[in-house]
Amino acid sequence: MTTAAAPAAKLAEDALAYARALIRAPSVTPDATGALDVVADLLRQAGYRVERLVSDTGGVAVDNLYARIGTTSPNLCFAGHVDVVPPGAEDAWRHPPFSGALEDGVLYGRGAVDMKGAVGAFLAAALHHGAPAHGSISFLITGDEEGPALDGTVKVVEWLAATGEVIDHCVVGEPTNPEALGDMVKIGRRGSLSGVITVTGKQGHVAYPHRADNPIPRLVRLLSALTAEPLDAGSDHFPPSNLEVVSVDVGNPAFNVIPAVATARFNVRYNDLYSLATLKAEIERRLGTAGEAYDLVFQRGASESFLTAPGTFVETVLDAVEDVTGRRPEMSTTGGTSDARFIKALCPVLEFGLVGQTMHMVDEQTPVADLVALAAIYERLIVRYFATFAA
Amino acid sequence: MTTAAAPAAKLAEDALAYARALIRAPSVTPDATGALDVVADLLRQAGYRVERLVSDTGGVAVDNLYARIGTTSPNLCFAGHVDVVPPGAEDAWRHPPFSGALEDGVLYGRGAVDMKGAVGAFLAAALHHGAPAHGSISFLITGDEEGPALDGTVKVVEWLAATGEVIDHCVVGEPTNPEALGDMVKIGRRGSLSGVITVTGKQGHVAYPHRADNPIPRLVRLLSALTAEPLDAGSDHFPPSNLEVVSVDVGNPAFNVIPAVATARFNVRYNDLYSLATLKAEIERRLGTAGEAYDLVFQRGASESFLTAPGTFVETVLDAVEDVTGRRPEMSTTGGTSDARFIKALCPVLEFGLVGQTMHMVDEQTPVADLVALAAIYERLIVRYFATFAA
Ligand SMILES: [Zn+2]
Ligand SMILES: [Zn+2]
Repeated sequence: MTTAAAPAAKLAEDALAYARALIRAPSVTPDATGALDVVADLLRQAGYRVERLVSDTGGVAVDNLYARIGTTSPNLCFAGHVDVVPPGAEDAWRHPPFSGALEDGVLYGRGAVDMKGAVGAFLAAALHHGAPAHGSISFLITGDEEGPALDGTVKVVEWLAATGEVIDHCVVGEPTNPEALGDMVKIGRRGSLSGVITVTGKQGHVAYPHRADNPIPRLVRLLSALTAEPLDAGSDHFPPSNLEVVSVDVGNPAFNVIPAVATARFNVRYNDLYSLATLKAEIERRLGTAGEAYDLVFQRGASESFLTAPGTFVETVLDAVEDVTGRRPEMSTTGGTSDARFIKALCPVLEFGLVGQTMHMVDEQTPVADLVALAAIYERLIVRYFATFAA
Repeated sequence: MTTAAAPAAKLAEDALAYARALIRAPSVTPDATGALDVVADLLRQAGYRVERLVSDTGGVAVDNLYARIGTTSPNLCFAGHVDVVPPGAEDAWRHPPFSGALEDGVLYGRGAVDMKGAVGAFLAAALHHGAPAHGSISFLITGDEEGPALDGTVKVVEWLAATGEVIDHCVVGEPTNPEALGDMVKIGRRGSLSGVITVTGKQGHVAYPHRADNPIPRLVRLLSALTAEPLDAGSDHFPPSNLEVVSVDVGNPAFNVIPAVATARFNVRYNDLYSLATLKAEIERRLGTAGEAYDLVFQRGASESFLTAPGTFVETVLDAVEDVTGRRPEMSTTGGTSDARFIKALCPVLEFGLVGQTMHMVDEQTPVADLVALAAIYERLIVRYFATFAA
């Protein structure tokens, strides 16, 4: 066994090469076919069985990939996405966003940390390690994580369940570290629920308010009632649930017109003190206290919270991170949702990847040293995993 | 003298013909040149001196007209506008909005009541009456009342003052009657003040609210403070001052993004218990009680309230209305602003016109009987005015 602190030169070289090849295959969500081809070609050459799964629930065909080497349990799956958010104004970038430029030991490009870098690192780790003597390694890579996420992991998970494919444990390569590699592993995620409140009044001229019914003061009272108190103070593994009103819109340009309709949009990130059902009930209860008529539509795509309780699998991941970084990461449930919410239906899942600071930003970047260390962590995880679960 | 209750057939015929000619000259604000040409031609033929005044303060050239017959005092002015608000979806109209269609004794068309009908009625009355033996009759007709009103009456009033032109009394032909001709004369108007409140926060992801600063809850608190109490309970001649929040806008389509900026737009219609300065101070005081940082910009075009106190001129108008309708109209200061707010700087001014119910609406319309009666009222006013003030 090589020592993880000095990763094999080949592993380091491959992790960087794979990450750059992925960045150079532009894949603004949901058009990720080219980047998935890079993954598919490498895995096929290494002896993986590769499935491509196209889904178009959301109206656009989305390409996804599932690949496996080995036929027996345990099956350790690496999950991730190769679609990326748009680069924005390309000339605002220090280097072209799809060039995979290197400068002073830093790799630049859209997806460098979210999450082509992690996909490249896991590819390097898995291929460097080779097929496990007992058990399987698999990849679940999608092209619809940054978009509506209707045709990505959720559909692959359905397909895996329908075909009887068994995954025993999964690591998602989202950028989980706030500051430095080794800071944080995510062992759960809050649920997410969005809704739109619409208050309908009656349009009229401001000079004749008695002939109109202004919906805005009523919406203000509803929003005051909705946000008057915190939802909770947090739980053992979770931070407090939080509701944000993200938009209020009337769109009336005329100062002399009382508008007919006002809307507010909100999102809640909630912990295990609520289920989706009890949270919806609490929101309706709060709105009800305002004593105003309103219409509330909860949006599609709401998710429950989930938790992979600390135990052998979590410890195995923490050990692998500590092997390479010398630090034992914090177990956290903070942050946004991820595709782990879908995978949770199949098996225990946690998330560990690069440092997320530049994700979705101009000049998204990762130190090459982090990328190489992440590949080493993933290789240590593969070694430890099969030593523990295939023994 | 003809009896006003049975107006001369010629007066009735002309009032309808002039109103239809004006409606058939489309003049969506501020492009009113064609409709002003109709007025100018009629007045020139009748011996009026006609001035055309073009102003373009607002960036668009606006055409206006001032015309007078006679050179001596007293000068009774009829003021109004021939620009109209857009017709909206023309196929929603029972008759094309610029056709001046007649059906079952009703005249249809954009401007029928606001206020080409009244302009036609006053033209018919003034031309039927002819030049006064002592004194003058004048017309102040603009093409920028329904728009920003920067290049209409306000500019003509400046020009009249600068050239030493004297107007002694003025009647504005806005549709003042809520239900039936004879209901209401406006002897004053509330002031109007508009403002925009902007709250600036910090954009971020909803999953990381501590890294962002959501401006929406802060704006909700500001609006609650602004609207918690009525501004006043009304005064002798005025209804209560009223503040309406007319729009709240964020424009954030993303449920997972905390926005950076939220704005609210409001308008106040206020009575003689406030001046513009004391009203602004009260608004800032109320916002200050919320304890939130905000930016407040008051809009251009604010106006003070005004009142033409009951007296001989007001009584003359009430008498003329009663002559024809048999009813003595209520003296009111309700409703929106009008160009009377500018004319007030020159002379006592009040407003009387048609029934306003369909103004600015699809199928704007007036009974022909109202139009004819209004022409008779205006002719009675001319007769009574010169009997009283030129005696
Ligand atoms: Zn991601
Ligand atoms: Zn008008």
